Amino acid sequence: MNIQIINPNSSKKITDDIKKAIKKYDINNKNLVFTTALDGPETIESSFDECFSATTVLETIKKNTHKYFDAHIIACFGDPGLDAAREFADVPVIGIAEASMHFASLVATKFTIITTVSRMKTHTENLLYKYGYDRKCSKVRAINCPVLSLVDEFDISRGILEEECVKAIDDDNIGAIILGCAGMAGLSTDLTAKYGIPIIDGVISAIYLSEALINSNITTSKHGDYAFPPEKKYLGKFKNMGTTL
Amino acid sequence: MNIQIINPNSSKKITDDIKKAIKKYDINNKNLVFTTALDGPETIESSFDECFSATTVLETIKKNTHKYFDAHIIACFGDPGLDAAREFADVPVIGIAEASMHFASLVATKFTIITTVSRMKTHTENLLYKYGYDRKCSKVRAINCPVLSLVDEFDISRGILEEECVKAIDDDNIGAIILGCAGMAGLSTDLTAKYGIPIIDGVISAIYLSEALINSNITTSKHGDYAFPPEKKYLGKFKNMGTTL
Amino acid sequence: MNIQIINPNSSKKITDDIKKAIKKYDINNKNLVFTTALDGPETIESSFDECFSATTVLETIKKNTHKYFDAHIIACFGDPGLDAAREFADVPVIGIAEASMHFASLVATKFTIITTVSRMKTHTENLLYKYGYDRKCSKVRAINCPVLSLVDEFDISRGILEEECVKAIDDDNIGAIILGCAGMAGLSTDLTAKYGIPIIDGVISAIYLSEALINSNITTSKHGDYAFPPEKKYLGKFKNMGTTL
Amino acid sequence: MNIQIINPNSSKKITDDIKKAIKKYDINNKNLVFTTALDGPETIESSFDECFSATTVLETIKKNTHKYFDAHIIACFGDPGLDAAREFADVPVIGIAEASMHFASLVATKFTIITTVSRMKTHTENLLYKYGYDRKCSKVRAINCPVLSLVDEFDISRGILEEECVKAIDDDNIGAIILGCAGMAGLSTDLTAKYGIPIIDGVISAIYLSEALINSNITTSKHGDYAFPPEKKYLGKFKNMGTTL
Amino acid sequence: MNIQIINPNSSKKITDDIKKAIKKYDINNKNLVFTTALDGPETIESSFDECFSATTVLETIKKNTHKYFDAHIIACFGDPGLDAAREFADVPVIGIAEASMHFASLVATKFTIITTVSRMKTHTENLLYKYGYDRKCSKVRAINCPVLSLVDEFDISRGILEEECVKAIDDDNIGAIILGCAGMAGLSTDLTAKYGIPIIDGVISAIYLSEALINSNITTSKHGDYAFPPEKKYLGKFKNMGTTL
Amino acid sequence: MNIQIINPNSSKKITDDIKKAIKKYDINNKNLVFTTALDGPETIESSFDECFSATTVLETIKKNTHKYFDAHIIACFGDPGLDAAREFADVPVIGIAEASMHFASLVATKFTIITTVSRMKTHTENLLYKYGYDRKCSKVRAINCPVLSLVDEFDISRGILEEECVKAIDDDNIGAIILGCAGMAGLSTDLTAKYGIPIIDGVISAIYLSEALINSNITTSKHGDYAFPPEKKYLGKFKNMGTTL
Repeated sequence: MNIQIINPNSSKKITDDIKKAIKKYDINNKNLVFTTALDGPETIESSFDECFSATTVLETIKKNTHKYFDAHIIACFGDPGLDAAREFADVPVIGIAEASMHFASLVATKFTIITTVSRMKTHTENLLYKYGYDRKCSKVRAINCPVLSLVDEFDISRGILEEECVKAIDDDNIGAIILGCAGMAGLSTDLTAKYGIPIIDGVISAIYLSEALINSNITTSKHGDYAFPPEKKYLGKFKNMGTTL
Repeated sequence: MNIQIINPNSSKKITDDIKKAIKKYDINNKNLVFTTALDGPETIESSFDECFSATTVLETIKKNTHKYFDAHIIACFGDPGLDAAREFADVPVIGIAEASMHFASLVATKFTIITTVSRMKTHTENLLYKYGYDRKCSKVRAINCPVLSLVDEFDISRGILEEECVKAIDDDNIGAIILGCAGMAGLSTDLTAKYGIPIIDGVISAIYLSEALINSNITTSKHGDYAFPPEKKYLGKFKNMGTTL
Repeated sequence: MNIQIINPNSSKKITDDIKKAIKKYDINNKNLVFTTALDGPETIESSFDECFSATTVLETIKKNTHKYFDAHIIACFGDPGLDAAREFADVPVIGIAEASMHFASLVATKFTIITTVSRMKTHTENLLYKYGYDRKCSKVRAINCPVLSLVDEFDISRGILEEECVKAIDDDNIGAIILGCAGMAGLSTDLTAKYGIPIIDGVISAIYLSEALINSNITTSKHGDYAFPPEKKYLGKFKNMGTTL
Repeated sequence: MNIQIINPNSSKKITDDIKKAIKKYDINNKNLVFTTALDGPETIESSFDECFSATTVLETIKKNTHKYFDAHIIACFGDPGLDAAREFADVPVIGIAEASMHFASLVATKFTIITTVSRMKTHTENLLYKYGYDRKCSKVRAINCPVLSLVDEFDISRGILEEECVKAIDDDNIGAIILGCAGMAGLSTDLTAKYGIPIIDGVISAIYLSEALINSNITTSKHGDYAFPPEKKYLGKFKNMGTTL
Repeated sequence: MNIQIINPNSSKKITDDIKKAIKKYDINNKNLVFTTALDGPETIESSFDECFSATTVLETIKKNTHKYFDAHIIACFGDPGLDAAREFADVPVIGIAEASMHFASLVATKFTIITTVSRMKTHTENLLYKYGYDRKCSKVRAINCPVLSLVDEFDISRGILEEECVKAIDDDNIGAIILGCAGMAGLSTDLTAKYGIPIIDGVISAIYLSEALINSNITTSKHGDYAFPPEKKYLGKFKNMGTTL
Repeated sequence: MNIQIINPNSSKKITDDIKKAIKKYDINNKNLVFTTALDGPETIESSFDECFSATTVLETIKKNTHKYFDAHIIACFGDPGLDAAREFADVPVIGIAEASMHFASLVATKFTIITTVSRMKTHTENLLYKYGYDRKCSKVRAINCPVLSLVDEFDISRGILEEECVKAIDDDNIGAIILGCAGMAGLSTDLTAKYGIPIIDGVISAIYLSEALINSNITTSKHGDYAFPPEKKYLGKFKNMGTTL
C-alpha cells in the first residue's frame, strides 16, 4: 500500500516533523512517500497562501502520476486543493483537517480545535461547516504562534499549546481536542496521555482513514462533480499539463 | 485485533448475511466475533423496535465483558444504543449508519441513502443531522420492502433496490449511494461495479473505520458526556447489572 | 379525563415530589394517575440510563392497557421513549422537556434551561434541536447537583439553583427560565414570584398541554412514522408482549 | 375565564365562520369574546395587509383594556402584530399559526401546511422559521383560492382543499396537515374523520393552548424584550393612545 | 435621480442628524428628499413601536405618489415596513440595517453590530437571519443608551459607543463594525479613521446601494410575493387609501 | 474612477462578450479596464479549474500594482480567488456571483440561479451558503451547456436558457432569476423585458456595487483575517513575487 503524504508548506522542516511524529505508530504494512511542495509559501496562514499551495498540491500529484499511489494525503490543516485533487486523482484523497474532525466526532459529542494564529479561526470554522462538524465543535481556539514557531521555538510553543488545552478541558464542555496544524504532529500521543482526553492529530488520522477507504474498496466518485472535467486548453504556464488534461 | 459485530436484530438470518458479505474482503488480520442480539425484535423498523434493540445491544456488550474486544460495531442502520454503548464501553463503538455516512462524504460531495420502508425516512434524516451529514445527503429514498424481505425474497428486493439506484443516479445530483440496511450487506461490491459509482455498505465501512481508530490509538473519550455515570441502583430486572454498574 | 404521569426514574421519592408540586394547581377536573417505573435506573443522568428508562416507560404503558387513559406524560426531562410511546399508544403522549419548551417559547423570545449535572447539557441541546427550540434557547446551564440531591439535600440544591437563576437573568438576554429536571417540580411558582420572570416547570406544562390536545380532539397520528409497525416476533424477554404487538 | 378572539380581517363573515366552527367543541367553562378588527383590510393576503392589520390588532386590545381578558388570540394565519401585542398586554397572546404548528408537532414528526394563495407561501415559511418548525414542515401547499372565496364559494374551495389534502397525504411523508387560514375553521373535524389523519385548525388550537397557559399560571414575560418600552410621545393619529402608553 | 429618505421615527432631530451626516459625502448627482414620518412614535425601540412606524412609512410613500422617486430608503435600523413597502412601490426600497449588513459582508468575513438598548438585540438578530447574515455577525452589542440620547446627550453617548467599539475590535474576531441606529449617522467616517477598521453607517450604505440598483436597471420584482395584492376594501381609517389600492 | 474587470477564464471571446454587454449601460463616469487572465484554463467548470484560475486572478492584480485601481471585479461566477484577492488588495474586490446574489435578494424574497453544466450546481450551492443566500435561493438549475457554447453556439444556448427561465418562473415560487455565468452577460436586459421579472447579470451588478462601496468610502478591512499575512518566503515559481509580499 503506497500513500503519498504531501506537505503543502514548502518548509522541509515541517515535513521532517511529520515524519518523526509518525514513527511512534505501527505503519509496517504501508509505504509512506513524503513530498514537500517546493514552489509554494513556506507556511500557510492566509487565503492568499492557500491559493498558491492548492496549485502546488495539484502539481505535486501531477508530477508523480508515473508512480502508483493508493491514496494522497494533504498534510496542512487548511486542506488546500482537496476538492480539485479529488477531481484529478483516481484514488482517495484525504485532508488532515477533515480526517481529524471525522475521528474526533467518533469518540466525543463535542470537541475543541486549537489552531495557530487567530486569523485562521474563520478559515477553520469554514472547514467545520464544509465537512458537517460545525455543531460538534464547541470552540476554535488560537495560540497566536505562527506555524514556523512550532518548529523553531518548539518548547515555548508547546507550553502555550498545553495551557490552551487545559483551558479547553475546563471550559468548553468537550470530550476531545484536535491539534489544528500539521506542525503540531507528534504531540498527540504525549498530550493524550498527560491530559486523559483524546487529543487528535490530523496526519495520523488521515493515514489510517486512507487505509480504511483503500481496504473497503471505496474510492473517489467519478460520477457527478468529482468527475474530471472535459479536456480543455490551458494557456501559458500550465501548457505543459495540456496533453493529459 | 478483536472486533465484536453486534446484530441488534434478533434474526440470525441477517447475521449470516452479514458474515457472507464480509467474505469478499480481506480481513485476515482481524478476529471478527458476530453476536445476534437474541432478546429484541426480529427486525428494527420503528422507534419502538429501536428502544428494545438498544437495550439488547447494551446487554450484549455487558455479557461479554470477560472477553477482550478492541471495538464494537452496531450492525443496524438505526445505530440503536450507540451513545449509551460509548458510555459503557472503554473501546471505540461504531454504528453502521454513521460509518457509511463518513465514508460517502469522503468520496462524493453529495450522496443518496436508500432505506427499506418509508416510515424509516424520518429516522434516517434524524441520524444525518446527528452526525452532521444532513447537507451532504441529497435524498433519502425508500424501496418499501420490509427488512426480512431482503433475506427471504432476495431476488425481488434486489431488483427493486437496483431500480431505485438507477433513479438516484439519474435524478439526485449525487456521487455516491449508501445502502441503508444491514440486510443489504453484500450487494455493495457488485452494485459499485455495475453502476460505476461508489455504493457503500455500512458494515464494511464500520469494520475498517474501527480498525483505523484502533491503530490511531484514539478511543472513546471518558471526559465529558461519554464518561460512564456514577454508580447507581437499578431496581427490578437490571438488578443483575448492579455490581459492575 | 384520565392522565397517566409516568416517572421513568425508579425513585418513588421523585414521584412523591411531583405529586406534592401539583397540589398547588387546580386539577379538579382531571384524574391524574402516577406511575413509578420500577425496573429502571433510580435516576436518569446519561444515555445509558435513558436506554433502560425508555423501555420501562413503554412497559409501564403496556401493563396498563386494560385501563383507559386520555394521555400519557413522561415525567423526566430527557423525554425517554417519547417517539416509541407515540407509536404504541393511541392517545397523546407528552414529554416534560418538550412541554416546558413549548410554553417558554409562547411567553418569551429567548429562554435559559437549568439542568442538573453538566454531562446532561449536550443531551438537552439535542432535545432543543429535536423540538425546534435551539434558536430560542440562549443558554443551557448546569448546577452540578445530581438528581437525587434535589430531593435528599433540597435546601442546598435550591440555593445553588437560585444562584444560577440570578446569573441567567443578569447575563443571558432572556425572558424565561425552564427548570430542567422533574426533581425541580414545585419550585416554579415560588421562583416565578420571587424573580418576576416566568420560571417554568415541565410537569405542570405537560399536564395542561395534554388537556389542551385532548379537548381539541387532536391525537397522535397513525399515518406515517408514528403508525405502529406491523406485528413481529419478539424473541426472549419481550415474548410476553407478543400477542398484542 | 375570558378569552378575546380578535379577527384581524375586517370581514365579519370570517368572524361568523369562526364562531360557527367553535360550536362543535366543548367550551362551557370559557367566555369567548369575538372582535372584528374594523379598520383594517377585508382580508390579509400580503405584507402590506399585515402591516395595517397589525395596528388594528393592537388598537383592538387597547380599546378593550377596561374589560378583563385572561388571554388574547390573533385569529389570522399570519399572526399579525403578535410580538407587539405581547409587549402591550399583560396576559398571554397566541397566534393561530403558532398554535397549530405547536399542536401538529406534538402528534406527528412531519406536517404539511395548506395555505390560500401562493404568494403567502414565503410568509408561512418565515413563520415556520420564527417558531422553530421549519424542519418539521414537509411542504407548504397553496390552493390558489383568495381568503374570501372560502366563505363566498365554500363548496368549490372545499373541493380544491380536499384534493390538496389527498396530495399531501400521498406525497409529503407526513403525519398531520395544518389548515393555514382562519377561513378554513370548521373543516378540521370533518376532514380529520374523513382522511384518518390529524387535520388541525389554528383557532381551536389557540383557544385550548391559551387555556393551558392560563391554568399553568404562565404569562408573557415582562423581563427582556417583551417588556413594554418606556413611555414615549406618539405624534399625530396615535396621540389618543398617549396617556396610558 | 430622486431618492426619498424616510425617517420612521417622528423625531425631526434625528432627520436633521441624518442630513448633517450625509454632507460629508459627495452626493452631487442625487436629489435626496428627506421625510419625517410625523404620526408614529418619537423613536423606535420595540415591536410595538415598529408596528406603528411601519404604517407611517407606508403612508409616507402613499402621500407622495404624485412626486417621482427612483428609490425609497427606510432610515431606521429595524427596517420597519420594508416588505410591505416593496409590495406597494414600483421602485427599489432599501432598509438601512439591510444596506449596512450587505456592505459589511463585502469587506470583512465577520462583523459586530452595536445597537442602542439591549431589548433591541433579539430584533437585530432576527434581521440578521432574515437577510442571511446571521453567520457573518460575530456579536450584537448594546450600549444601553436610548435612541434620543444619541441626539440629546451626544458626547456621553459617543463616549460609550467608542468604548464598545474598542471591546468589539479586541474580543469579537471581526473585520468591521456596523453602527446599529440611524441616530449614530455621521460618526462612521471619524470612527473608521480613528480605529482603522471599517465602521459602517446604514444611511450612507443605503443611499449608494439604491443608486447601484437604479443604475443597474434592477427594480423590485412584481412577480411573486412582492406583487401588490388584488384590490380590496379597506374599512375605517384607511378608506382614503381605497381608490388607488 | 478606475475599475479593473478580471476575466479569470483565459478565453478572450468571453472578455469581448462582457465588454459588449456593458455597452447597454451608462458607465460614463467610470474607467473600466478589462483584463483576460492569460495563463489559466480557457473556461472554469470544475474545482480543478478554479484552483488555477484563482492564482491567475491574484497574479493579474499583482502585475498591475503600478496602476491605480479603485476596485477589482472577478468576472467568473465561481468568484475564484475572492478572499485571497481581498487580503492582497487595498481596495474593494467583488465577485460577480456575490454581486448578483446581493442584488437579487434586494428585489425578491426568493430567486433561482441558472448555471451552465450540472456539475457546477454544488459549487453554486456552496457559494450561496458562503454569502448567506442559501435560504433565499429556491433552486439552482443547469442548462447543461458548456461555458464556451454560450459564445460559440449562442443561438442554441440562448434558446435552452430561455426555456429554463420559463420553467423557473412557473415552478420555483420566485421573484427573480440570476444568470449564473459571465458568458451569459448581455442577456439580462432583454430577458428582463421579455419575461417581466428581474433577470440579473453578475458583471453589471458587480460594477455598480463596486462604485457604491467606493463612494461610501468603505474598503476591504485590514483588521482581522483580510489583513495581508506577514511577509514570508515563496520558493520556486512565485519567487518573483517575493519582494513586495
